[in-house]
Amino acid sequence: MLAPHTDDVELGCGGTIARFVEEGESQIFVAVFSTAGDSVPKGFPKTALRDEFYDAMRILGVKKSGLSVYDYAVRKLSYSRQDVLEQLVKLGRSVKPDVVFLPSSQDLHQDHQTLYNEGLRAFKETTMWGYELPWNTITFPTRGFITLEERHLERKWKALQAYKTQFAMNRPYFSLDYIRAIAMVRGVQVKSKYAEAFDVIREKW
Amino acid sequence: MLAPHTDDVELGCGGTIARFVEEGESQIFVAVFSTAGDSVPKGFPKTALRDEFYDAMRILGVKKSGLSVYDYAVRKLSYSRQDVLEQLVKLGRSVKPDVVFLPSSQDLHQDHQTLYNEGLRAFKETTMWGYELPWNTITFPTRGFITLEERHLERKWKALQAYKTQFAMNRPYFSLDYIRAIAMVRGVQVKSKYAEAFDVIREKW
Amino acid sequence: MLAPHTDDVELGCGGTIARFVEEGESQIFVAVFSTAGDSVPKGFPKTALRDEFYDAMRILGVKKSGLSVYDYAVRKLSYSRQDVLEQLVKLGRSVKPDVVFLPSSQDLHQDHQTLYNEGLRAFKETTMWGYELPWNTITFPTRGFITLEERHLERKWKALQAYKTQFAMNRPYFSLDYIRAIAMVRGVQVKSKYAEAFDVIREKW
Amino acid sequence: MLAPHTDDVELGCGGTIARFVEEGESQIFVAVFSTAGDSVPKGFPKTALRDEFYDAMRILGVKKSGLSVYDYAVRKLSYSRQDVLEQLVKLGRSVKPDVVFLPSSQDLHQDHQTLYNEGLRAFKETTMWGYELPWNTITFPTRGFITLEERHLERKWKALQAYKTQFAMNRPYFSLDYIRAIAMVRGVQVKSKYAEAFDVIREKW
Amino acid sequence: MLAPHTDDVELGCGGTIARFVEEGESQIFVAVFSTAGDSVPKGFPKTALRDEFYDAMRILGVKKSGLSVYDYAVRKLSYSRQDVLEQLVKLGRSVKPDVVFLPSSQDLHQDHQTLYNEGLRAFKETTMWGYELPWNTITFPTRGFITLEERHLERKWKALQAYKTQFAMNRPYFSLDYIRAIAMVRGVQVKSKYAEAFDVIREKW
Amino acid sequence: MLAPHTDDVELGCGGTIARFVEEGESQIFVAVFSTAGDSVPKGFPKTALRDEFYDAMRILGVKKSGLSVYDYAVRKLSYSRQDVLEQLVKLGRSVKPDVVFLPSSQDLHQDHQTLYNEGLRAFKETTMWGYELPWNTITFPTRGFITLEERHLERKWKALQAYKTQFAMNRPYFSLDYIRAIAMVRGVQVKSKYAEAFDVIREKW
Repeated sequence: MLAPHTDDVELGCGGTIARFVEEGESQIFVAVFSTAGDSVPKGFPKTALRDEFYDAMRILGVKKSGLSVYDYAVRKLSYSRQDVLEQLVKLGRSVKPDVVFLPSSQDLHQDHQTLYNEGLRAFKETTMWGYELPWNTITFPTRGFITLEERHLERKWKALQAYKTQFAMNRPYFSLDYIRAIAMVRGVQVKSKYAEAFDVIREKW
Repeated sequence: MLAPHTDDVELGCGGTIARFVEEGESQIFVAVFSTAGDSVPKGFPKTALRDEFYDAMRILGVKKSGLSVYDYAVRKLSYSRQDVLEQLVKLGRSVKPDVVFLPSSQDLHQDHQTLYNEGLRAFKETTMWGYELPWNTITFPTRGFITLEERHLERKWKALQAYKTQFAMNRPYFSLDYIRAIAMVRGVQVKSKYAEAFDVIREKW
Repeated sequence: MLAPHTDDVELGCGGTIARFVEEGESQIFVAVFSTAGDSVPKGFPKTALRDEFYDAMRILGVKKSGLSVYDYAVRKLSYSRQDVLEQLVKLGRSVKPDVVFLPSSQDLHQDHQTLYNEGLRAFKETTMWGYELPWNTITFPTRGFITLEERHLERKWKALQAYKTQFAMNRPYFSLDYIRAIAMVRGVQVKSKYAEAFDVIREKW
Repeated sequence: MLAPHTDDVELGCGGTIARFVEEGESQIFVAVFSTAGDSVPKGFPKTALRDEFYDAMRILGVKKSGLSVYDYAVRKLSYSRQDVLEQLVKLGRSVKPDVVFLPSSQDLHQDHQTLYNEGLRAFKETTMWGYELPWNTITFPTRGFITLEERHLERKWKALQAYKTQFAMNRPYFSLDYIRAIAMVRGVQVKSKYAEAFDVIREKW
Repeated sequence: MLAPHTDDVELGCGGTIARFVEEGESQIFVAVFSTAGDSVPKGFPKTALRDEFYDAMRILGVKKSGLSVYDYAVRKLSYSRQDVLEQLVKLGRSVKPDVVFLPSSQDLHQDHQTLYNEGLRAFKETTMWGYELPWNTITFPTRGFITLEERHLERKWKALQAYKTQFAMNRPYFSLDYIRAIAMVRGVQVKSKYAEAFDVIREKW
Repeated sequence: MLAPHTDDVELGCGGTIARFVEEGESQIFVAVFSTAGDSVPKGFPKTALRDEFYDAMRILGVKKSGLSVYDYAVRKLSYSRQDVLEQLVKLGRSVKPDVVFLPSSQDLHQDHQTLYNEGLRAFKETTMWGYELPWNTITFPTRGFITLEERHLERKWKALQAYKTQFAMNRPYFSLDYIRAIAMVRGVQVKSKYAEAFDVIREKW
């Protein structure tokens, strides 16, 4: 799972991680490319986002050995695209993932676009699914769905609560109401109570 | 506002109608193309959907004189496409709408597609917005947004409650939870508490 | 697996069927919508295509109880689209498939388009993959891949040889060279020797 | 209104500005990102384009207080994309625009693409329309139209005549014939004598 | 050249025909599918459109032996799609065209869509270009261009003047101003004074 | 013909070059942007790729005076995009090409994307065709085809054999089997034994 910043993976596929862990999947790797030191709200230490990320992942049940955190400058990932690509290729060689979750092809955020573009290059022969962050998209092709139960949503919400910095910034999508809303809308599309939706980039069986 | 069946307009843009009525817009026209006599659940009269539609529209505040109900066979609108088009052209000549709301370009339902295709032909020189029904789409271009307040959602929900036939069929999207969920997800995209999203087909100023 | 005509499924995903059967999947259902009585070359009985289809399926290892053959008029499926849809809905209710293979969204053939459109409606809450028939497409989104071994190709080729009517018509894609060529081109895209490629329409986990 | 270079806004939506001014809209802001000092033809001062821009805007009726001119290097805006974005965010905070006009999603020019991409990020919660410059596009989605009268075209043409540097370079689209031609073609699409067409990126009511 | 109705080919590629004839191309075939007897304005004979078509083609320099006129009902071509396809296949076999001009993939008119869809099936192994009629499109991919001189435009205009029925209906695009306007806009895209633009569907060398 | 690296043009349109040379076309220009000094396998000199390129071109019959080799850093062309563009504009002015072959709009490789983007800007008023390299694409619009004979394929294969470095790296597409496979698949689409397929970006007659 590739995250431009801490919290992207939790918001986009936290329920999926919770379900995978529950189903016994112990080989989950999450890489974060920027801890956005510059964007931490006043009163928090520079390392706040990194700490919150470790916390959130622990709550979701991802082993610490599966976590990688890189220190690229937030919002400027595009200036280091070849570096990012080489990092991804290295990661791919050591992890040999079966499925890669990354930002979607439709994500407008500059760092998300860079990670999508480079991820596509690094993992083009692997199954790749792009997660949904509606505030960053104009359109979103809901081709993939992972159905969820109430308990997966609850776990996702618990993990998100680790991000005290984001609550301090009043993000409207940092609320249980939003988490449940998006899961319900996506569930309705596939006759399930809840789901997370994905942009299926490639699928290899 | 063009609806293939009763309830499509309410589900897709009921909040918008509530807001328009509140803002004093008295010239609202709604045309329904099939009352789906064949799909009425057991124990309801054949005319149930038509009656429920009149009821729902009254609750939203649309004048009865603005309502047209045609009796095309449900799920078979495509076999009468030229008739539907001629009906739309006639309607357009008498109403001269400034904005036309119709099913979106992405809607998979056979009758919705017919109404979209013929609507496009009849109103190509007018502003046209396609409403969102997520259970009928794979992708949806959220180009247009109409922001809503709590009270518009409540009115939408009240109108939907007129459809007792649909509650009898246990449609998961016939619930206040769903109505609020989709409005919250779309609101998050444009920094509003709630919104309805639209596929902007054409816009003329 | 949905086929507008006999041989479409074999050409588009014969290797996949061979692999599924080998992996122990015994629940494979194949429905053909037209046996194209009118297109049978001179010297063959009207039922030739139906017989060849049963033969080909036996070679691939699909049980006869999983086969359905309907008698719609070839090239005119579009005139019966609502019938086809209702047939598909019925089929879906009895079979409850996990994955549906059908013609792709890009297929230009009139009957293939009808089956794609109606299949999409009938199975929109299920995993759906569209198979590739290059002579019928201008573009093709190779999102999905099923990797194959030499033995799956050989089985596919054996099944195709059942279609003596098609050899009589000199179709250039009824040759082992073509079967191997397309499998090699698609394999190269995902670092496998051979593969069949698919248009991933929907994927539900 | 966002312009990569002087003259882009005049060519793409000069008639629209003329109509807005006529209708009493006094809050028009135009930001130019490069005055292309390097591209000024021989015999003109380095500041020629900036002066011509002020002149053209005066003719259209835009107040000088609404004009911002930045000095990014022409054709190299992409190398400063994060700077441009931050500039746009700052601008957005001070101006709080209702509608943003910017280069279209289809514009091939490197600086136009940068301004489109960063504009999209800065104003994603606002109505955004992309203007049309046919020499820079392969396709163009004419979703939005602003109808114009003869007098708006004349005003547009007057404003363009301020660009003596461009006439010196014999640009074929710096002619009254072209201005009228594109307005007539776009008008025909919406039953108006003249119009300017736009790529509707987002629309919020 | 395939025309749903008389005048479509003249409007979409009349200049191209004029240029081809001038360059000595004597093998030009034009097929019209409906002479729209029902749409003839009052005071004209039922055969007016057919006569005008022969006239227009004579002016452009196309031999009468190259003209085919079929009598399908206007606006209802879709109900006869398989017939139209079979007609096209027959035509293709006798003419063996190198290039086929037909309505574009983006044309919204019901008869134009039918002719595009069936043409695509009949001629998929041939070069196919779709002509532009802006009043029928929302977007148009200007991939192909045929550059024109003043004299080709004049010839096109002379041919269009044969359509007295259309002048009687006050079509805004039946004017020299419009003919010149669209040719100038398309010319600007490829550094030519005038051009006609096309949707390149397939190109085979 | 524009190649990001040596061997791209040979793989994507080697058969086309062979056919053009055979038909007497003596004005063929090929520009390579990176000789990828860093990617040369052990045991080969740094200049290996450049030498192999000259060799391959000689085999195809392209005159040495038509070859240009630039030394941009492999995989980092994007960091020099304005330089690349200026190089292309200069090349365009000296060569005045009728047709430009370049990487396709769908190519995922970072250097190929840069060359496509800048090529589009430099040659937007010229015929441009993008060649196909399936390992770099998810989708590919096969709009253009150049049909080939066995002897063109053989010549292509001979030229590719000059690339000893690539054989050392075991590229699966460096084999006669692959060369023939892709040519056969593309040929099937246009009723020819063999063909190379192209993304038609622009076509000007």
